[in-house]
This record gives sequence, C-alpha cells and structure tokens, in this order.
Amino acid sequence: MTKETVKAIQDVYPDDYAWCYGCGRLNKDGLQLKTKWEGNQTVTTYTPHAEHMAIPGFVYGGLIASLVDCHGTGSASMALHRKNGHEIGDGEEPPRFVTASLHVDYLKPTPHNTELKAVGTIEEIHPKKWKIYTEVFAGGINCAKGEIVAAVMPDTFK
Amino acid sequence: MTKETVKAIQDVYPDDYAWCYGCGRLNKDGLQLKTKWEGNQTVTTYTPHAEHMAIPGFVYGGLIASLVDCHGTGSASMALHRKNGHEIGDGEEPPRFVTASLHVDYLKPTPHNTELKAVGTIEEIHPKKWKIYTEVFAGGINCAKGEIVAAVMPDTFK
Repeated sequence: MTKETVKAIQDVYPDDYAWCYGCGRLNKDGLQLKTKWEGNQTVTTYTPHAEHMAIPGFVYGGLIASLVDCHGTGSASMALHRKNGHEIGDGEEPPRFVTASLHVDYLKPTPHNTELKAVGTIEEIHPKKWKIYTEVFAGGINCAKGEIVAAVMPDTFK
Repeated sequence: MTKETVKAIQDVYPDDYAWCYGCGRLNKDGLQLKTKWEGNQTVTTYTPHAEHMAIPGFVYGGLIASLVDCHGTGSASMALHRKNGHEIGDGEEPPRFVTASLHVDYLKPTPHNTELKAVGTIEEIHPKKWKIYTEVFAGGINCAKGEIVAAVMPDTFK
C-alpha cells in the first residue's frame, strides 16, 4: 500500500462520531481535517479558507487551536489503535478520544494562502490518556507549537 | 448610559483590524464575537451554530478555544484602553493585541443549543502583556476554563 492510499483515521471513525466541526467527515460545513501516519509521527495538512484570517495576510489563532486539537485527538486514536494491534482501514473501529486540555504557543504570525502542516509526536501517559505534542508549519516555518492531553471518550459523551 | 447601549470593544477596533474570523465585525463569514465590561470582569456570549458540534448534542472544542482566545484579546484591549484613560466608544481607538499563548481545560462536555457565556478576569503582567483567565458557562454550568497571554500587536503584524 503506498503512502497516498493510506486512509486517515477520521475516515474510519464510526459514523456516530464523525460529525466534529474540526475533523468529522460527515460535517459538510466543517474543516474535515485528516490525520495520517508519517513514520512514527502524525501529520494533518490544511489550507485555511479566505475568511480564516486574524487580519488580512495572517491566519486567526482559533483555526490553529482547532488544528492542534483535532490533530491531537486523531493522533491519540491512531496510537491506541496501533497499540491494540490494529491499523487504519483494517476493518476494526478505532477508539475515540476527547480533549482534556489544550495548549498553544503562537511563535510567529502564520501567513495566509499557505498550506499548514501539523506534525505530532505521541506520548502515552496512561492507558486511557495520551499527550500529543504538535508543531504547526506554514511554508516550512514553524509558526506555532502546542500540546493536548486526550482521554478515551467517557460515557458522559455517549 | 445603560448597560445595553455600551458598545463592545470589537465595535471600535480600527477597520484594518476588524477582520478576525473569531471577532472581526467586518468578517461576514466569521463568529463576530463581542466583548463587553460587566463590572471589573469581561463577558462574551455566543450561541454556537448547528454545525459547531463535536458529536451531536455537544459543542466542539475548537469553538471554545476560539471563544477563550478572542474574548481574551478583546479583554486585554479593553483593560489597556481603560488604563490609558479611555472607555469604549469615547472616540479613541483601542490598542490591538495578539495571542502569545492559549490554554483551555475542558471540564465537562459542553451542551449544544445553549448560549455560551465567557467571563474574563484580567491581570496585567507587563505594560504590553496581559493575562486573561476565562470561565466558559453553558446554561450556568462551567464547562471549560482557560487563559491566554496577550501581547500588544507587534510590528511584524503591520
């Protein structure tokens, strides 16, 4: 299977959990972020829309926060899925995570009209709780870094 | 002047800085968040749209992050404006801030179809750098808390 044909984790979320504005494939008005493996790291790319500006020429911070967030929960799902012996697209439903906390440091103004690339590094801190460190690049420049703590979706969400 | 006639800080941002997807009054596709004083605290209310879900019934985390972010930069602008001897709508342009860092703790799933209320408490940590603590309520329930460090907009943004 070539890299290009590997599905994103969001492509195999159960339908009931595929509605997130940030990363739900069924949310037609949302960002539809897609997260894939790249070696032992995870990658999500997204090109902001014209309206996603802070001021003309720069991307607004909330979009970068959403990217770090959904990239992080997707990455945690991928990591636990792999730990459980599964890979994206093998027919097994992956676990779903929610965000316990989100932190973003805005390092530089993020230029608009450029594809953003979030690169994630995953750390297990508990069998049901994972930390994902993410760097966000725009045209190769590291404009933001962030991390989330993601927890396996609790019953209160179901 | 009654409370209801007091303008929001975003109503008096200079036009060039009124395009933010989160809080720009000129961004017709954005959230158009509005932040006002309530005593010595600041308040922003927003009712999420139908598409702003995490899963059906609950608001997605990126929207809450955007709310904490734009509410925070607006609050910082209001605080420095007041410190400089001005009030919203007195004809003086307020200072504009950018977010240096953003942190959000998601305390409970945030119910959809309910107005969100962000309540901010402001701390000056440097003449050009402010910290804003924010609690986000949905129907009176504190669903998230967050803080940002906001800095006066640097020349790299201009």
